[in-house]
Amino acid sequence: MSHTVEILSVGTELLLGNIANTDAQMLSQGLSELGLNVFWHTVVGDNLQRAEEAVALAKKRADIIITTGGLGPTCDDLTKNVLAEAFGKKLVFDEGSAERIRSYFQRTGRPMTDNNLQQAMLPEGCTILENDWGTAPGCAFESEGVHVIMLPGPPSECRPMFQYRARPYLLSLSEGVIASHTIKLFGIGESSMEAQLRDQMNAMSNPTLAPYAKEGECELRVTAKASTDQEAQALLKPTVEQVKKLFRDKVYGVDVPSLEHVVIETLKTKGLTLGVAESCTGGLIAKRLTDVPGASHAFKGGIVSYTNEVKERVLGVPPHMLERYGAVSEEVAAAMAEGVRRVLDCDIALSSTGVAGPDRDDRDNEVGTMFVAIATPMGTHVRALHLGNRPMRERLRTQTASHAFDLARRYLSGLEYEH
Amino acid sequence: MSHTVEILSVGTELLLGNIANTDAQMLSQGLSELGLNVFWHTVVGDNLQRAEEAVALAKKRADIIITTGGLGPTCDDLTKNVLAEAFGKKLVFDEGSAERIRSYFQRTGRPMTDNNLQQAMLPEGCTILENDWGTAPGCAFESEGVHVIMLPGPPSECRPMFQYRARPYLLSLSEGVIASHTIKLFGIGESSMEAQLRDQMNAMSNPTLAPYAKEGECELRVTAKASTDQEAQALLKPTVEQVKKLFRDKVYGVDVPSLEHVVIETLKTKGLTLGVAESCTGGLIAKRLTDVPGASHAFKGGIVSYTNEVKERVLGVPPHMLERYGAVSEEVAAAMAEGVRRVLDCDIALSSTGVAGPDRDDRDNEVGTMFVAIATPMGTHVRALHLGNRPMRERLRTQTASHAFDLARRYLSGLEYEH
Repeated sequence: MSHTVEILSVGTELLLGNIANTDAQMLSQGLSELGLNVFWHTVVGDNLQRAEEAVALAKKRADIIITTGGLGPTCDDLTKNVLAEAFGKKLVFDEGSAERIRSYFQRTGRPMTDNNLQQAMLPEGCTILENDWGTAPGCAFESEGVHVIMLPGPPSECRPMFQYRARPYLLSLSEGVIASHTIKLFGIGESSMEAQLRDQMNAMSNPTLAPYAKEGECELRVTAKASTDQEAQALLKPTVEQVKKLFRDKVYGVDVPSLEHVVIETLKTKGLTLGVAESCTGGLIAKRLTDVPGASHAFKGGIVSYTNEVKERVLGVPPHMLERYGAVSEEVAAAMAEGVRRVLDCDIALSSTGVAGPDRDDRDNEVGTMFVAIATPMGTHVRALHLGNRPMRERLRTQTASHAFDLARRYLSGLEYEH
Repeated sequence: MSHTVEILSVGTELLLGNIANTDAQMLSQGLSELGLNVFWHTVVGDNLQRAEEAVALAKKRADIIITTGGLGPTCDDLTKNVLAEAFGKKLVFDEGSAERIRSYFQRTGRPMTDNNLQQAMLPEGCTILENDWGTAPGCAFESEGVHVIMLPGPPSECRPMFQYRARPYLLSLSEGVIASHTIKLFGIGESSMEAQLRDQMNAMSNPTLAPYAKEGECELRVTAKASTDQEAQALLKPTVEQVKKLFRDKVYGVDVPSLEHVVIETLKTKGLTLGVAESCTGGLIAKRLTDVPGASHAFKGGIVSYTNEVKERVLGVPPHMLERYGAVSEEVAAAMAEGVRRVLDCDIALSSTGVAGPDRDDRDNEVGTMFVAIATPMGTHVRALHLGNRPMRERLRTQTASHAFDLARRYLSGLEYEH
């Protein structure tokens, strides 16, 4: 029998528009992959009566209710109280959870107040979902044919709590297994990718092919359902191969976390070192590289030369070059990469310079004019980017960093830089 | 009489998690500012039956229904049909809208298909909300004591359609205004903040006080409702002052975007320059500083010394010091800050070194052991942090960066570094 899910988010901050309901998005994506149908998202504030109404409704129209938020001391654990009430369960004190909460505060050295221990009150007989990412434990129980799963609201807790706690619990509910692979692409737009795949996507039912676009990158998730993992994998293989063949060097990996992971891992395998010099990305390239655990084995470091003075002093970019071409130029991008490669004594160096906005630079370069460069033993290559001039500083910087990683990825894989 | 709003979003892409419901956030923000109470967000897919159920519910519990999405030809104008039906209205062809749609396709040079003209079918007697940002017109009508407003789904259309079409329509409905201020705090946990304010928060009705925790920081949102903005501001002032007095130097600003904004702005006002040397944060400090538009007026640059070699070569940290104390030490944190202050020739320098995980470092320092330092003309100060050893690299790095900003903020405001 196929399940019907309602995601119920509790939090006045959502109704005031202080934050977007990214929990519901993250959960919906994960639940779809499990083959569970999400039919409703509901949001209510920290309000007893409306929370009760919402739960009564969800109980009628869904057989899996997943709640986010309303577990903290600041809202008197509204969600837990209302759901326990709705399903006629008592809240009982769980010493194990209390202990985890106490030790969390010890570890973080923050003073614990009594109301924190409220969070250790849990519905009798529930499965406790231990929260390693915050203080409020989650929980799950089945009652009256309905599965209830409660997760904390903060996205930094909700995401891992779903991935490592709720997901395994839900897997047991979906019959058969669902396996999926994610093919990661860079350098192609979602719409042109979709255009090339549309007929195929519509024709397919198992496996299915779902495109996602994020931050100037594209993902294709291939998902198959079967009775065993082997069968599912057998269904997936030909489709994955087909897609890889179709998009060739635009595919940078399958089931890899990110472009920067691929770069770091390849560097480690080859025993090569990397350094970066950043202007417009202002540290983002280094930050993303060091998001990769163990990056220090390949990434030596970086220099954020946000001013010309630093480009000259630390990177040795010739003053006359800055004078003549300006900081946002192919020449300076190349000189920055070569400079940092020399200063940090590394095998490969990346650089970025450009106009992230909101305003044009002193040479009247348009916002979105970017240069990324790579310096290697084989020489230096610069890629010029025109990322459009709409005010979206964050996105411009992210895309510029990704292009720098793409250059490194292509060099390390012996691919042409441009196509 | 005060209004009750339900935001009803129609779109399968929301239930699949392809996109977050940013329309609902944007609308909620705008509606709160109009003094309208948003009590419900509901999301359903492009499904007739569930759309009908959702509308029937909204009609019962809200007197203002705002819908987003479901207006395009791809979903057979689901939303318009369901709402017209629910309120017993016919859809009639509006030649004016048809003309606008035709000319839109002429302007954008895209081919128009007949189903595009469906969008010119509108509920009889409705107020047409002309869409200058896309093809689907919005509309509004009052029936059975309920105001219905339909807006297109794409955020790039929904936002201006609310701002320039729906907002003026709603202004006439809302009596009074809502004003709010957000007090930003660093260095205090949500629950201990909440414990100190609890009685007060419960006692208050206008203004109200709402706490939020994010990324190791806290916010207090003070919201007041009155008939004029002046009256609302007068209600807010004493509460804001009271909170500032209560939490003193933990308050880093009111209605400010972030700690790093405060640091950059203060530096600019004082005409001082900043440089950073990062190990464990790996570029995040520089990245966050350069998220602030115009940061280049105060932020000179940074050095990401992810390896000891770079700490020695570029920052001039003495090899014997790294040898004796290890890279993760108070001594090295101080030497890094002093080194980068010298190398980049800036007034103030920040540094970070620590173990972001997932594993302990070679000296067996626990994950979460961090040192941040500030070097100034008045000397150098190091703050030692023990942020807990849970697997949350991203969060550890974010909190470490925030502590570095806190040191800068305290120096620039003449506050004690520790309390």
